[in-house]
Amino acid sequence: MKHFLDLLGQGAENARDLVRLATRLEQTPEPTALAGKVLGLIFMNPSLRTLASFQAGMARLGGNSFVITPQGSWQLEFETGVPMTGNAAEHVREAIPVLASYADALGIRAFAGGKDLDADLAEPVLSAVAEVCPVPLINLESAFDHPCQALADWKTLDDLGVPAAGGRFVLSWAQHPKPLPQAVPAAVLRMAAMRGMDVTVLRPDGFGLPQPIMDEAAAAARASGGTVTQTSDRASAMDGAHVLYAKSWTATDHYGDPAAEAALRAGLEGWTVEEDWFGPAAPDCGFMHCLPVRREVVVSADVLEGPRSRVIAQARNRMYAQMAVLHRLLAKGEN
Amino acid sequence: MKHFLDLLGQGAENARDLVRLATRLEQTPEPTALAGKVLGLIFMNPSLRTLASFQAGMARLGGNSFVITPQGSWQLEFETGVPMTGNAAEHVREAIPVLASYADALGIRAFAGGKDLDADLAEPVLSAVAEVCPVPLINLESAFDHPCQALADWKTLDDLGVPAAGGRFVLSWAQHPKPLPQAVPAAVLRMAAMRGMDVTVLRPDGFGLPQPIMDEAAAAARASGGTVTQTSDRASAMDGAHVLYAKSWTATDHYGDPAAEAALRAGLEGWTVEEDWFGPAAPDCGFMHCLPVRREVVVSADVLEGPRSRVIAQARNRMYAQMAVLHRLLAKGEN
Amino acid sequence: MKHFLDLLGQGAENARDLVRLATRLEQTPEPTALAGKVLGLIFMNPSLRTLASFQAGMARLGGNSFVITPQGSWQLEFETGVPMTGNAAEHVREAIPVLASYADALGIRAFAGGKDLDADLAEPVLSAVAEVCPVPLINLESAFDHPCQALADWKTLDDLGVPAAGGRFVLSWAQHPKPLPQAVPAAVLRMAAMRGMDVTVLRPDGFGLPQPIMDEAAAAARASGGTVTQTSDRASAMDGAHVLYAKSWTATDHYGDPAAEAALRAGLEGWTVEEDWFGPAAPDCGFMHCLPVRREVVVSADVLEGPRSRVIAQARNRMYAQMAVLHRLLAKGEN
Repeated sequence: MKHFLDLLGQGAENARDLVRLATRLEQTPEPTALAGKVLGLIFMNPSLRTLASFQAGMARLGGNSFVITPQGSWQLEFETGVPMTGNAAEHVREAIPVLASYADALGIRAFAGGKDLDADLAEPVLSAVAEVCPVPLINLESAFDHPCQALADWKTLDDLGVPAAGGRFVLSWAQHPKPLPQAVPAAVLRMAAMRGMDVTVLRPDGFGLPQPIMDEAAAAARASGGTVTQTSDRASAMDGAHVLYAKSWTATDHYGDPAAEAALRAGLEGWTVEEDWFGPAAPDCGFMHCLPVRREVVVSADVLEGPRSRVIAQARNRMYAQMAVLHRLLAKGEN
Repeated sequence: MKHFLDLLGQGAENARDLVRLATRLEQTPEPTALAGKVLGLIFMNPSLRTLASFQAGMARLGGNSFVITPQGSWQLEFETGVPMTGNAAEHVREAIPVLASYADALGIRAFAGGKDLDADLAEPVLSAVAEVCPVPLINLESAFDHPCQALADWKTLDDLGVPAAGGRFVLSWAQHPKPLPQAVPAAVLRMAAMRGMDVTVLRPDGFGLPQPIMDEAAAAARASGGTVTQTSDRASAMDGAHVLYAKSWTATDHYGDPAAEAALRAGLEGWTVEEDWFGPAAPDCGFMHCLPVRREVVVSADVLEGPRSRVIAQARNRMYAQMAVLHRLLAKGEN
Repeated sequence: MKHFLDLLGQGAENARDLVRLATRLEQTPEPTALAGKVLGLIFMNPSLRTLASFQAGMARLGGNSFVITPQGSWQLEFETGVPMTGNAAEHVREAIPVLASYADALGIRAFAGGKDLDADLAEPVLSAVAEVCPVPLINLESAFDHPCQALADWKTLDDLGVPAAGGRFVLSWAQHPKPLPQAVPAAVLRMAAMRGMDVTVLRPDGFGLPQPIMDEAAAAARASGGTVTQTSDRASAMDGAHVLYAKSWTATDHYGDPAAEAALRAGLEGWTVEEDWFGPAAPDCGFMHCLPVRREVVVSADVLEGPRSRVIAQARNRMYAQMAVLHRLLAKGEN
């Protein structure tokens, strides 16, 4: 394993190994496994969980970390072949090799541009970084992936005893005041498919995830014995569900067109997860969300704080999942 | 000791123990006492001393820390029962349990709202955080308290040999271009009373500290053998003073009314501490201030840099006081 | 060695010793040399390399660090004798002794004011900090110096086998959309002279470096057996050059007059380093730049990424050079 840019590329067996390693590190601390190692974390976008869990996880393995943000540094250029006469003072093709010369591994967060779907699907920033990064690189959330979240969620599903074969996983769109990136739903969808579950994407018309993402999920499901379907019908989706994973995301059909997107979103007030979503058809169904989450918009407070909710366990597993990734990338004798 | 939210709640005996532990850690380093421990520091407001002294203190005990700020993250919601349709992307009831799952202890700084005195006296943010924080929580300055400052100041008074019984402590209001929070004067007043000193609050009319704070200080003084009085007469206040502790704070009588407050403050140019404040009645009186301090506004440069000044010692003691708190909360066999 | 404020003040022999120590630390890690030590880094201006390389370097020596920025703290006052009624909440004469009481060494970055050349040449901020700093202080880039960059560049020249005596070093001005500080060219010029090289400053009319800087460089060259000249003629400058060090800087002749400076800069489009700058007269000439660098403005992408380019090696050497400085300042038995 050189980089950790996506979960799909690891293959199901390696993903299962990483989950096992995360569980081992949760149960048996290894406080000197990464002694002397340094992790560089580059955040082009805000973070709470990712920054804290990576810095804490690195410390718990005996290593150190530093953080680069646009607030403390300057704007980076990611395009090649353009004269840098604008705001960006440094090109990624210098910045990354330089930071890599100080660190044993780097992580980068760079959200989607949000204007051009095909451009974002090509992961231009993550690709530009990976191309010039001579040390292991970790995706801290990119345009269409968030593999650390997906790996942590896989561990949470295992911890909860949700079956892989035959497990019913509903990924549901939810209401939100702003158009949000599709990185988490795209990551979670492919993870659930790769885990071998029966996955349903529940979303209003116009909010189906992009076809290339659906195709990758379908292929992963075929390989693992799972299935992927999508619907706008809540009752059928929730029937027998083990887990409802809620998340808002921007409308694919109006990607890069904020006015049209907002108009489509405006009529969807019913898409706030409430207790009555579960009903007799899914009485023990768990509720998952990657956080941050807006209460009474995405989900009611009683579901979020109630017995179905797994959101704190999910967030906690971020640290152990990422410790496993760091351990695999950096510990002696592991690669 | 589960949390460290205020000094008063520790009781005088525990406070004295913490000061003793701070002195011990100053004299005898314990570079591995908190090996493997992680502290999470959440700053909703700016910091210089608190951030640096906590990160340095944690490192000097062998532990690690991470920092969350609104610049690098997003706005948090502290109220319950409101739909989160505004700027806040995450509720404290998720953010705190999540960060607590990465850290062995958390600290939070959240200043007063400054609009409603009774609301601020109820410490809404600190209470909301403490209610959902499963790990030890440290108050890094709240609406009406700053116990780390108070504990450090107690140590400074001990270091200087200022007597507890019979020690004369003057807490004086001072001029400032802006209305400032009352957290430090409220913390220092109660600390001095709890230490058993004779405390005088010297302030212009309209700037008396809120009655609930005065009542708590009076009760602490009764228990410790000290006294608490207030006056606007400088000469009587300074007579025989061992220590003048200067600080500006907003006018309680116009709390939340900036225009009226500014008008009241405008006529108080004489409230800049100068050498002639001390005079023959308090020749050896020390000068204290929590910092940051505005020169030639709160205090003259010659007093601030002169032989009376204890401000650097006070700031230095922040690190040792906080190391004692961390040691008590987190070291093995200490709780 | 008490402080590390400039390279010139170290003397050539000490500078060579530091380069040797940097090379030793590059080849033979000393992961516990600074165990228990804390470095405080104060950035009044943005940073990418300096922050990351100091935090990583300190970690690689077993120590810890904290970072203070204006975003997380507040504005500092550096002038004395002025009533602090403006935006600055704290004076450097308190802030520095306080931070020094938490740290074993401090570093500060404070760029030139850019309005008054003579004032900036006096290094008012760095001087004000050094005057009140009781622990070792490191210059992280000041108005007219950047000794960590200069020391790293010296090591890079050694690593590349560029001769000291007889080595031909061209420091060239380059085009840029903004007027930039002169700290790096001033630091690099004096370093190259101190190393004993034959140094040519290649720049358009009006962009000659300030006379006091040129005089210091000339004196250093005399002492080391090198030479310093300046010209606006590229062909003569590049003839036989071992290294072309490119950097943009503001026009000295219009220092503090942005409109006049921009007018002078506007006609200098030819000052973008291209492959044809080297030609048959300097076929093996290396290309250096301190970074960040704007592609197709300061230098063409093909030169920057081509075989002449040493920019990543330069940046990498920042960490080892700074580890040597930290080791010399803080390791036991070294001072």
